[in-house]
Amino acid sequence: MSIFETLESEVRSYSRGWPVVFDRAQGSWLYSEDGKAYLDFFAGAGALNYGHNNPVLKKALIDYISRDGVTHALDMFTVAKRDFLETLNDVILKPREMDYKVIFPGPGGANAVEAALKLARKVTGKESVINFTNAFHGMTLGALSVTGNSMKRGGAGIPLVHATPMPYDKYFDGAYPDFLYFERLLEDSGSGLNEPAAVIVETVQGEGGINAARLEWLKGLSELCERHDILLILDDVQMGCGRTGPFFSFEEAGIKPDMICLSKSIGGYGLPLAITLVRPDLDVWSPGEHNGTFRGINPAFVTAAEALRTYWRDDELEKSTKAKGERVGRVFTELVDSYPESNLVAKGRGLARGLEFPDGEIAGKVCAQAFERGLLMETSGPDGEVVKLLPALTTTEEEIEQGLSIIKESVGAVLSR
Amino acid sequence: MSIFETLESEVRSYSRGWPVVFDRAQGSWLYSEDGKAYLDFFAGAGALNYGHNNPVLKKALIDYISRDGVTHALDMFTVAKRDFLETLNDVILKPREMDYKVIFPGPGGANAVEAALKLARKVTGKESVINFTNAFHGMTLGALSVTGNSMKRGGAGIPLVHATPMPYDKYFDGAYPDFLYFERLLEDSGSGLNEPAAVIVETVQGEGGINAARLEWLKGLSELCERHDILLILDDVQMGCGRTGPFFSFEEAGIKPDMICLSKSIGGYGLPLAITLVRPDLDVWSPGEHNGTFRGINPAFVTAAEALRTYWRDDELEKSTKAKGERVGRVFTELVDSYPESNLVAKGRGLARGLEFPDGEIAGKVCAQAFERGLLMETSGPDGEVVKLLPALTTTEEEIEQGLSIIKESVGAVLSR
Amino acid sequence: MSIFETLESEVRSYSRGWPVVFDRAQGSWLYSEDGKAYLDFFAGAGALNYGHNNPVLKKALIDYISRDGVTHALDMFTVAKRDFLETLNDVILKPREMDYKVIFPGPGGANAVEAALKLARKVTGKESVINFTNAFHGMTLGALSVTGNSMKRGGAGIPLVHATPMPYDKYFDGAYPDFLYFERLLEDSGSGLNEPAAVIVETVQGEGGINAARLEWLKGLSELCERHDILLILDDVQMGCGRTGPFFSFEEAGIKPDMICLSKSIGGYGLPLAITLVRPDLDVWSPGEHNGTFRGINPAFVTAAEALRTYWRDDELEKSTKAKGERVGRVFTELVDSYPESNLVAKGRGLARGLEFPDGEIAGKVCAQAFERGLLMETSGPDGEVVKLLPALTTTEEEIEQGLSIIKESVGAVLSR
Amino acid sequence: MSIFETLESEVRSYSRGWPVVFDRAQGSWLYSEDGKAYLDFFAGAGALNYGHNNPVLKKALIDYISRDGVTHALDMFTVAKRDFLETLNDVILKPREMDYKVIFPGPGGANAVEAALKLARKVTGKESVINFTNAFHGMTLGALSVTGNSMKRGGAGIPLVHATPMPYDKYFDGAYPDFLYFERLLEDSGSGLNEPAAVIVETVQGEGGINAARLEWLKGLSELCERHDILLILDDVQMGCGRTGPFFSFEEAGIKPDMICLSKSIGGYGLPLAITLVRPDLDVWSPGEHNGTFRGINPAFVTAAEALRTYWRDDELEKSTKAKGERVGRVFTELVDSYPESNLVAKGRGLARGLEFPDGEIAGKVCAQAFERGLLMETSGPDGEVVKLLPALTTTEEEIEQGLSIIKESVGAVLSR
Repeated sequence: MSIFETLESEVRSYSRGWPVVFDRAQGSWLYSEDGKAYLDFFAGAGALNYGHNNPVLKKALIDYISRDGVTHALDMFTVAKRDFLETLNDVILKPREMDYKVIFPGPGGANAVEAALKLARKVTGKESVINFTNAFHGMTLGALSVTGNSMKRGGAGIPLVHATPMPYDKYFDGAYPDFLYFERLLEDSGSGLNEPAAVIVETVQGEGGINAARLEWLKGLSELCERHDILLILDDVQMGCGRTGPFFSFEEAGIKPDMICLSKSIGGYGLPLAITLVRPDLDVWSPGEHNGTFRGINPAFVTAAEALRTYWRDDELEKSTKAKGERVGRVFTELVDSYPESNLVAKGRGLARGLEFPDGEIAGKVCAQAFERGLLMETSGPDGEVVKLLPALTTTEEEIEQGLSIIKESVGAVLSR
Repeated sequence: MSIFETLESEVRSYSRGWPVVFDRAQGSWLYSEDGKAYLDFFAGAGALNYGHNNPVLKKALIDYISRDGVTHALDMFTVAKRDFLETLNDVILKPREMDYKVIFPGPGGANAVEAALKLARKVTGKESVINFTNAFHGMTLGALSVTGNSMKRGGAGIPLVHATPMPYDKYFDGAYPDFLYFERLLEDSGSGLNEPAAVIVETVQGEGGINAARLEWLKGLSELCERHDILLILDDVQMGCGRTGPFFSFEEAGIKPDMICLSKSIGGYGLPLAITLVRPDLDVWSPGEHNGTFRGINPAFVTAAEALRTYWRDDELEKSTKAKGERVGRVFTELVDSYPESNLVAKGRGLARGLEFPDGEIAGKVCAQAFERGLLMETSGPDGEVVKLLPALTTTEEEIEQGLSIIKESVGAVLSR
Repeated sequence: MSIFETLESEVRSYSRGWPVVFDRAQGSWLYSEDGKAYLDFFAGAGALNYGHNNPVLKKALIDYISRDGVTHALDMFTVAKRDFLETLNDVILKPREMDYKVIFPGPGGANAVEAALKLARKVTGKESVINFTNAFHGMTLGALSVTGNSMKRGGAGIPLVHATPMPYDKYFDGAYPDFLYFERLLEDSGSGLNEPAAVIVETVQGEGGINAARLEWLKGLSELCERHDILLILDDVQMGCGRTGPFFSFEEAGIKPDMICLSKSIGGYGLPLAITLVRPDLDVWSPGEHNGTFRGINPAFVTAAEALRTYWRDDELEKSTKAKGERVGRVFTELVDSYPESNLVAKGRGLARGLEFPDGEIAGKVCAQAFERGLLMETSGPDGEVVKLLPALTTTEEEIEQGLSIIKESVGAVLSR
Repeated sequence: MSIFETLESEVRSYSRGWPVVFDRAQGSWLYSEDGKAYLDFFAGAGALNYGHNNPVLKKALIDYISRDGVTHALDMFTVAKRDFLETLNDVILKPREMDYKVIFPGPGGANAVEAALKLARKVTGKESVINFTNAFHGMTLGALSVTGNSMKRGGAGIPLVHATPMPYDKYFDGAYPDFLYFERLLEDSGSGLNEPAAVIVETVQGEGGINAARLEWLKGLSELCERHDILLILDDVQMGCGRTGPFFSFEEAGIKPDMICLSKSIGGYGLPLAITLVRPDLDVWSPGEHNGTFRGINPAFVTAAEALRTYWRDDELEKSTKAKGERVGRVFTELVDSYPESNLVAKGRGLARGLEFPDGEIAGKVCAQAFERGLLMETSGPDGEVVKLLPALTTTEEEIEQGLSIIKESVGAVLSR
């Protein structure tokens, strides 16, 4: 393992908790080079909703590469991109009566966010953006300025300005009316709040600790934005593509964001791809005003289109995701009840689930125990106090049970000491 | 073509000059869906130095995918990543006596730049960065703030601060000593220049108009940085990986930058990959302080390592690149001489070549003529006044001649009117 | 009046409500050039706590000028400055067991604020400052960035950053516990709030609409700052020098701010003077690091020292100010009760009193009616909805009654229509 | 002297070089409390162009105070303000065919600069401002961001952005054509220079080391601003009011700045007063958009108007200032010639004169020697290497000679050691 230690930067993180060298992967399983199998309940932090090396997508991918389909094409027109756009339109947008234009902003989620923020500022002529406590939107300077984590913000090396945090749903445990503070500041011309171009929000804060906003809170936010003529940017990078059940995590709230950021699982196979959907009247870019080299990775278009065709023509995946999510939720609630003195909290929606421990040290120990037992899970939350589950949506019920058993054992091993 | 027009954002650019739908690609050739072949002298804006769908890399890629090698692995340890790191070390770093640590910052060049800027600011505790006139470093907010193009800067929607532009080499056509203004400002405690954390520079400005800095200018810049304790960030995203001949474009200047940004062709096959190399003592990140989902795309590691093994174990590619580059340069000089009244200028180094026209309109017409004749070329420079050639380094001598013939015809068709 | 209209900038404001040309002044009275007397209940926006051309101070001033005492002395040592410092120490600081150093930052209140903000940032190495909704701290860029009024902020022409507004006392009419949101953000490392160097606060917001914070709120704020190691800057520019009764408006809250800004009435006679008091251990300036031409206006030192000696050797002024303030308060409460359908609100403390109307138009009409009856009053608050009383503390009881009668008539004239 | 040391902040500066306590002043003389007379060649850093306690102004001032003329009147109309405006118009503006509106921005020079910067940004909708190397414009955040001195900038505690320094006249000793770099950056749309709202400039940099720009350089700058539609802000705070001969220091350059900042000697007697003159079409403020307590100090209006009437109805003062300035210049040139090995440089224009020494230590010793001999002078320049002379314009020829003798002795005492 020494080449990693001597050559790779100290910034590496996941490899610290899982100090093995992985070689192969299939479905919900990762295999280390010495042949040990790991059940993966992290799934590329949500980038592998259809599992590792999904065979349907794999076949399409190999076919495309084998026949010398264009690989890299900047933002040129290609057959693969057309197929992706048509499929996105037919399978996702049209059935939901969503009228959006598609920006290809660069290959990662942060790029999708940067494009949205730039466009929102250009459209409105305002600089300020409202973000929420414990938000995570990415690590490039624009995205980082709307991210909450103080350690990550500190890495910027410059003051991160132009963003003001507002309390996310349940920040005060329901003790106060939603948006009381936010709307008061907006309505008071003496409040000192810079007039915001946009609000950026996640429906479930993954990095922030699997904080799931209530649907009525999301609806309220959308209405507030409309009332005050503020653009609503929905960052669905981690929670989109079915993570919470429906394709877009905000569907059940009945809202229509002005801009939507997608990445991670949109590519289907784990290849980098990101898109920003914007209301057509907001698409005021000049040609080339936001560009980049990797805006059209055609192998990712191929697997992206195939994934949409395979999984989103009907509501089977949505239903099974919800069912599996509820199963996990029930087990987590049982764990909460089993250790009343530990003040555990069960969190989440769909297959984005969290179990909150009193502190990050305990949560870390639970993950370490799980790793020893062959299960990959990560912590999240400001102090790493939440064990975070993002299994592939294609994980079988048996695998879910297998993972839950390991979790129960791991929690027991840590809390019963 | 209507799905592109109705669904894709107005920000698309390359597809406007080349309004065909591409399907397949091989080597230096792109094929539209109606079967027409295009000789590609743009090569993914430098992302395809080894040609489209290079067969050696393709084989390694298909093998890896077929055997279910891990595709997406965040920043976990993998066999593919280890192979890449070892190959990078053995083939590139060690032979050049370069001691650097490798950051995987996200999949695009802008991410490599953002990581370098953040780290430079963190290390020095200073916010300000020096960039150069007509620089291009990317479109995320940090990278954009050190980019020169006013149209692209305008897209930010917020004032881009913390960067001060200095004149790039030949900005005054050699009329004044190098760095006269820059060093005077640094030495004068009343100059009002914020003390810079770092200088960021390209050895040849691709987007800026194929401006090739002299080696002694680069050396002088490196010495100035050392004298004033300023970090030198070398953005080799477009000019690295052999574009100008040697693997790193700065090798012949005999300098050792503090940080080096690589992307585009580092992945070999056109798949997104970026790395930032930093002097080991500067690697002061906390774990996870800069992260992201797509920091380890293993298929790209596979093709990246294979490309290094195939092309960089000896100096054949370097030599042939220089030879081909000189051939292009000679033809460009002949064109300059053939149209003395048009004030053309031949520019560039290695296989990064430019032909400057009096204005962007003329240069655009030349590219349009070339496209009609089956050759893909783009313009660059602040007003698009430079026809820019970045052919794959693996383009054959015959293909080079074929392209040059088309260029001569195209120039003739425009200028002789 | 035409020279004003042709030559003076459109930015002028008070002259629009009081379109007469004033010539002389004495005590609480201003006289227009045509000899009409106006009872002044605005008193230079709090700069004339001892009345216009106070005879005791006037005598000292004329004596000093007549004997050619130094007028302008930059920050040199002078007899007049020594006398001021000694008197400030003996009469104000020592009896209150206050250990502070005195900065002479420039002649206006905004300068006192700018000096405090700069020093707080220098001491802590942090950029961010917390201000409060409806705060007013001045119009230079640093002071403006912590000011709430959106019209005034808009005048900056650049985004005003580095400040985050928190709810002032009673912002939610007691529905939220004090500092709930503020402290939650501070304690949550994922909140996205930039760690603040300082909090800047007024005890009664004059421009903001005569919002008087409760003493326990001020005490709570001071304790919160101590808990979180944040510097507390008390802007006592308008409310200091006895406006609310005691010399410092925060005395009764029992707190010891880290920095205190004074201006307006500190000079005694209406001549420009400002000081910033700082805890001795925070006085880390280099010599000349904050300078300016008008840091030592000796005639102002003379009247300042004389005012302290005349009015602050005992508690008579404090007592009479409170008594007069309570009298005004009672009358305002009666007015509130007399017009139950108008939803008036009586506000304030000491002789900083406000009467809030439903909107700025009505409040403006009341002031216009008062002006016609020979009384000068102004509006404040985000929409100008509060009639604001800042009479000289030396106003006699008879004059107070005279003014209150006019106010009653004026309110009646407007509300009974 | 202990009260100063125990109570006054460490930021005090002038008192460190002149450690005596001054009491009285008359004309060009300051008297310490022990009766020693000092010839003042610093004159309040240019705030006392008409000498200390000028008897004509003193009489008008005492008369005004004695008759209870309004002292403090915010921005209300007063008889004294009308007289000032009319006199300014009749004596200064009309005869020079200057059509400007007058802003009263607050009492110090920095306020005049802040108002100009705010208005320039509001009018143009651009944030960026061009300043010059070694500029000094004040210490509040807006003014400081366009100031050059790194120690003073460091006091801000936040990154000072939105300003880019350009080389002042003679920065490269004539080696570069004027404005070569500046205009090149403006014309190059890829330069990375943020499009500037305004340029702010001094005609002679006082704090920067008595750097006198050539008239043709000023004219060239004005033309460049016109060509590129950039507002020209002339900061005449220190060099205006006759310091270089004519009332405005830029008159001989034949330019018409868009905005002019005046303070220091505009009040005549050393009382705080500042005005910003703006082209009428730029006066787009909303009422109260830039306000402040001390915008109308009527005693300063009285002395200001009296000074204009007394000294600017004819060209006597202008002529005598030039003659005295030339006399100082000749003596400085003789000193330069007398110490050829010391590389002295004689600098300046009118009665703003400088003698540059090899370093700040030597210049400081010369001032110390002069102080011992009863002459007050200060150093300026980035390293304090320039002895700076700003005697009152009313200094008699005999006093000038007396001071020059002391200077010669002092230089001799230091350089001959």
